[in-house]
Amino acid sequence: LANDLVKAVLAGERLALARVLTQAENDTPAGRAALDDLFPLAGKAHLIGITGAPGTGKSTLVNQIARCFRHPDNGAPPRRVGIIAVDPTSPFTGGAILGDRVRMRDLAGDPGVFIRSMATRGALGGLARATSSIAQVLDAAGYDVILIETVGAGQQEVEIARLAHTTIVVEAPGLGDDIQAIKAGILEIADILLINKADRPGVENTERSLRSILELAHTGRHSSNPCGVNSRSHRLLSGFTMPDQNEGWTPPLLRTIATQAIGIGDVVLSISDHRQYLEDSGEWLQRDHTRLQAELEDRLHATLVDQWNAQLPEGLYNAILARLFDHQCSPNQAIAELLQIKEKA
Amino acid sequence: LANDLVKAVLAGERLALARVLTQAENDTPAGRAALDDLFPLAGKAHLIGITGAPGTGKSTLVNQIARCFRHPDNGAPPRRVGIIAVDPTSPFTGGAILGDRVRMRDLAGDPGVFIRSMATRGALGGLARATSSIAQVLDAAGYDVILIETVGAGQQEVEIARLAHTTIVVEAPGLGDDIQAIKAGILEIADILLINKADRPGVENTERSLRSILELAHTGRHSSNPCGVNSRSHRLLSGFTMPDQNEGWTPPLLRTIATQAIGIGDVVLSISDHRQYLEDSGEWLQRDHTRLQAELEDRLHATLVDQWNAQLPEGLYNAILARLFDHQCSPNQAIAELLQIKEKA
Repeated sequence: LANDLVKAVLAGERLALARVLTQAENDTPAGRAALDDLFPLAGKAHLIGITGAPGTGKSTLVNQIARCFRHPDNGAPPRRVGIIAVDPTSPFTGGAILGDRVRMRDLAGDPGVFIRSMATRGALGGLARATSSIAQVLDAAGYDVILIETVGAGQQEVEIARLAHTTIVVEAPGLGDDIQAIKAGILEIADILLINKADRPGVENTERSLRSILELAHTGRHSSNPCGVNSRSHRLLSGFTMPDQNEGWTPPLLRTIATQAIGIGDVVLSISDHRQYLEDSGEWLQRDHTRLQAELEDRLHATLVDQWNAQLPEGLYNAILARLFDHQCSPNQAIAELLQIKEKA
Repeated sequence: LANDLVKAVLAGERLALARVLTQAENDTPAGRAALDDLFPLAGKAHLIGITGAPGTGKSTLVNQIARCFRHPDNGAPPRRVGIIAVDPTSPFTGGAILGDRVRMRDLAGDPGVFIRSMATRGALGGLARATSSIAQVLDAAGYDVILIETVGAGQQEVEIARLAHTTIVVEAPGLGDDIQAIKAGILEIADILLINKADRPGVENTERSLRSILELAHTGRHSSNPCGVNSRSHRLLSGFTMPDQNEGWTPPLLRTIATQAIGIGDVVLSISDHRQYLEDSGEWLQRDHTRLQAELEDRLHATLVDQWNAQLPEGLYNAILARLFDHQCSPNQAIAELLQIKEKA
């Protein structure tokens, strides 16, 4: 079954693609089998993350950027575009509050565009894993450019942005100065920074404050942050840390008015410049490797826990838990007991 | 050594307490040994999380709440207060940008107050684990009330808020309507909701919008959120999900002006009401259990991965990683290989 579905996906059948994406998103056995078959064909697409707070006009921007890739004005061939819209990911609301997502009607009916909306997963990490699988399937299915839209609101979005070769952070005037500080973390992952809705009052102030935060973020992170992580670094099992991958690239700060398609050409040019930079510097491969290793370790850890749990004698876990609840043993002592008994068995 | 240190902590020696806290925060063998000794004495303190965006005046509030517990105006005996200040936790900046933390000078010199500032840990989860250990040590050392201050900016803060019996979410007028939606997730964990800086213009608007979000958060979460998590639920190894623990308690919405000590008495009354509610409803124990189980599983998973990694044949991991990087095997196939070879050994 997986094999037939995979053939249909490679033949360009959209219904088959939708089915495989659902299986991959849900991490079913059929989804895993399809991914095993498709994975050798993946690795060519340009993954572009687009992240920003609600109200910055991200969906409209994604729409316009996709149109630009479909209808290049410089005579280049059109690119096939996959769009992964990750719903607002408050860890709790599951998208209920921001449910009125702008649909990307302009692109409907274009056979060179495939749009996938993702439900948010409850478990932290699950969403990043599912998004990665979706991107791999679209990549193998021949989509050249994959736009991943997330709400820039926290760790989960940062994890997803980490998936991308190129991360675009979208701001807009009038979101209040107080939240700029919150955004500092998300700004540090920006390869391209956009001020959308640039016809709004306050655009000069926004640009000024973004410039100062950007400078702080991109000059200060090595000296002032001895024990923190930086944007692209990832502690790996092999014991070394990937270097920060933004060195050597200065994120451009661009203005757009997406609703009027103003400034989009420059965004696409910057995306193209960044791709060239990544390829020339070797970072393209480095980012691919960091992403694949992070995904491997994430899945590996989940599998290790599942395996251990499956072998645990019935009732033992709850017995030790009860002693922990009564403060008869500490968490560390509980772990020692759980693992000791496992080793004897 | 651990034993002597523990005795000194229990005798009230602050220097010994500071040392044990450092060991516990860093999860050293000495820290674990001390925690094993101290854990049976913990479990009495009231853990109170105070979270909110930068600019809401959290530190001043924590200061005032601590003073109220130290100098009750209703003739009650003063409580011993521990304060854990978790530095701003952008996953990347490590506190560099928001480094100008307000120091709580009013409380310096009071032997019934112990203040601990935590460095942010790079690893997600590490900060929650360290905060939990710090709270357990302070609890065992006889601090009755433990105030845990975090920046309400994402998943990490939600994890830390989960530590608390009572979670106070702090807002302030003028933070912009656009970010209210982001905050919906954090609002759902509120047991008490404060509008600080209530002398600022716009307080009516803030209160109105918070009320509407609160209502949405507290009435809609079961019906509108079939696949999401809710505030206190936690997927547990034993396979069942803890019920949402906020049912039956309606979070009060209070106004304060912390810089002028206005409204603090009502906050402390609400904290006391919430404690009574938790005890009467059985949620006090339930929250303790959820927290302990989450900590156990977090540590257990980390230990399992470490053990597995230590037994892995030299070079195997990197060899399989290289094949993954070349797209010769998928992440799932890489895991199958890594675990198969482990089982043969």
